[in-house]
Amino acid sequence: MKKSPRSLDHAVAVGCLALLSVATMTQVSAQTAAPAALEVPAKTIPVPTDVSPQLQKVIGAPLRSNWNIQPKTGEEWKPVADAGAAALVKNVPGMLERLKVKVEKTTIDGVRAYIVTPETIAPENRNRQLIHMHGGCYVLNPGDAGLPEAIFMAGFGHIKVISVDYRMPPEAYFPAALDDGITVWKAALKTMDAKNMAIFGTSAGGSLTLEMVLKARELGLPLPGAIGPGTPMSDVTKIGDTFQTNAMLDNVLVSPDGFCDAGTKVYANGHDMKDPMLSPVYGDMKGFPPTILTSGTRDLLLSNTVRVHRKLRQAGVEATLQVYEGMSHAHYIRDDTAPESKEVFEEIAGFFDKHLGK
Amino acid sequence: MKKSPRSLDHAVAVGCLALLSVATMTQVSAQTAAPAALEVPAKTIPVPTDVSPQLQKVIGAPLRSNWNIQPKTGEEWKPVADAGAAALVKNVPGMLERLKVKVEKTTIDGVRAYIVTPETIAPENRNRQLIHMHGGCYVLNPGDAGLPEAIFMAGFGHIKVISVDYRMPPEAYFPAALDDGITVWKAALKTMDAKNMAIFGTSAGGSLTLEMVLKARELGLPLPGAIGPGTPMSDVTKIGDTFQTNAMLDNVLVSPDGFCDAGTKVYANGHDMKDPMLSPVYGDMKGFPPTILTSGTRDLLLSNTVRVHRKLRQAGVEATLQVYEGMSHAHYIRDDTAPESKEVFEEIAGFFDKHLGK
Repeated sequence: MKKSPRSLDHAVAVGCLALLSVATMTQVSAQTAAPAALEVPAKTIPVPTDVSPQLQKVIGAPLRSNWNIQPKTGEEWKPVADAGAAALVKNVPGMLERLKVKVEKTTIDGVRAYIVTPETIAPENRNRQLIHMHGGCYVLNPGDAGLPEAIFMAGFGHIKVISVDYRMPPEAYFPAALDDGITVWKAALKTMDAKNMAIFGTSAGGSLTLEMVLKARELGLPLPGAIGPGTPMSDVTKIGDTFQTNAMLDNVLVSPDGFCDAGTKVYANGHDMKDPMLSPVYGDMKGFPPTILTSGTRDLLLSNTVRVHRKLRQAGVEATLQVYEGMSHAHYIRDDTAPESKEVFEEIAGFFDKHLGK
Repeated sequence: MKKSPRSLDHAVAVGCLALLSVATMTQVSAQTAAPAALEVPAKTIPVPTDVSPQLQKVIGAPLRSNWNIQPKTGEEWKPVADAGAAALVKNVPGMLERLKVKVEKTTIDGVRAYIVTPETIAPENRNRQLIHMHGGCYVLNPGDAGLPEAIFMAGFGHIKVISVDYRMPPEAYFPAALDDGITVWKAALKTMDAKNMAIFGTSAGGSLTLEMVLKARELGLPLPGAIGPGTPMSDVTKIGDTFQTNAMLDNVLVSPDGFCDAGTKVYANGHDMKDPMLSPVYGDMKGFPPTILTSGTRDLLLSNTVRVHRKLRQAGVEATLQVYEGMSHAHYIRDDTAPESKEVFEEIAGFFDKHLGK
């Protein structure tokens, strides 16, 4: 019988599964104490057809080329961060134009920041502002490179955003990013009622959002009226099921042992990674403000996101989870022309509108 | 060199990956028009440590042994359904005792059903009742085997539940299950205000919940005050990213081409699988009642769930998504002693309490 390529593929796969089963059985008998792990065979995963062409392009991109780099010091990270930023900032002028947003550089009590203002501020947002903490594993996206999410939020949400260009290695280490966020929060409290403000951010920025609430409470400062942590790095100890299940599938973070883990370790600078100021999922979330969380089905940090959601709900907090089809980590801040990006930020803006004071 | 079982396993896996790559390349070169697919290597996935011991046991169970059976007729399904039911019903008496729930068999306008009543009905639930549609790919869980979710809901939610033992192949085919659900809904409307009632169910029961709302609207019947579709089979045309990404990882459904697809095809009986009465994600969701959706990070139908969530939100419906760490399809109705099961049903009960009339 002449075999087609398809049936050859199938025959090889079946044969291999049989071989793997034998090997696995040998292994199991040698490791009776270990809990039963699951052997998942290799898979060919197509780009989903039920998302926009723009998002298909983002999902169909190859794995991040340098996902496995492991710089060990702040000095080693600097050129990596600068190269990444140089590529990213090229997109900023187009975003500003399309979303009708302007950006002004400033310093707030010594902390570098940007005031990000949409051409039209919605009437209900006139006495409101948002504090933005950018992502990048605590080592990436310095300066303008941290702006895209702030621009998306200002443009789609028609609201003023203060984006914090916090210190990162090699300039400073843990808890510098958090300290800078808190400095800006304290300054903002002098200009506006806390209940009229929200804090938001993605990835490390999502984690910093949660850390800022924990820290503000610790310091006895008023808490924001709402927060929007997007796919937060809420557990940097690598606990969380999707660290494994979405490994090599999430084309942004790719692996729990990749660049992002390396960057976080450099920022942590020897500090305990399980400290809630680095892994806020371990913090006490009682009394947290209403929270909207965002993730995607391929997100390496989907577990980090849903675990925060559950912790918040268990603490009685009003918390909303949005999971988007096919998205890897932070895909929603890649292309401002993707309808899904607009949807993400309109959901967050709607949630803030519901919960913030006027 | 003497090889350890671990390195043998590794060698076999690597060899197999190489063989599979060749086979796959052959295939790809014959399909140059296809969008870029991602090659995900084989992975060993441990049982997550951040869930309860009870849930770890459910997650650590091997893949469903008969996941790939493909009965082609209702008559072929009957013995499969009966054998499965015989195993399941053994657990029912223990559940009833632990959750302090009693069950009474009845017929409602000719439709088989159960009245499921907790020992203590919460004061706010005295004038409320829920309609339950069980799961099982439209062919499984006849009779008492469909009861566990209804018992969990009644016991954890302290509310009366009517569980519909709808007709399935070979007794009847599409749209018999939906028709039976609607018959019970019409009967319930004669006893209570629609706004005091919710409909809920998991898997096929989640899909039937959505189908019943679509059908009730089509018939001009009042809609329930809220609904709770759990991991609904909302798209039985196999569209949805997690059909691929969670294949061979979800230990319940295992594959989009497994027993559940085979069962649904038999029930559909030649009817268009994209009809919203079989794939409700394609229905118009404007005006839907407030909806709480439940899924897990390993769920093959996570995409089916989040896509319904997005459709509802796009239609302006108040819709809440709950995704649980590590859970495969419908894991939350496996063990009533798992704290996560209690959490799932308390969330649903809380959502219903917020939205139902009294």
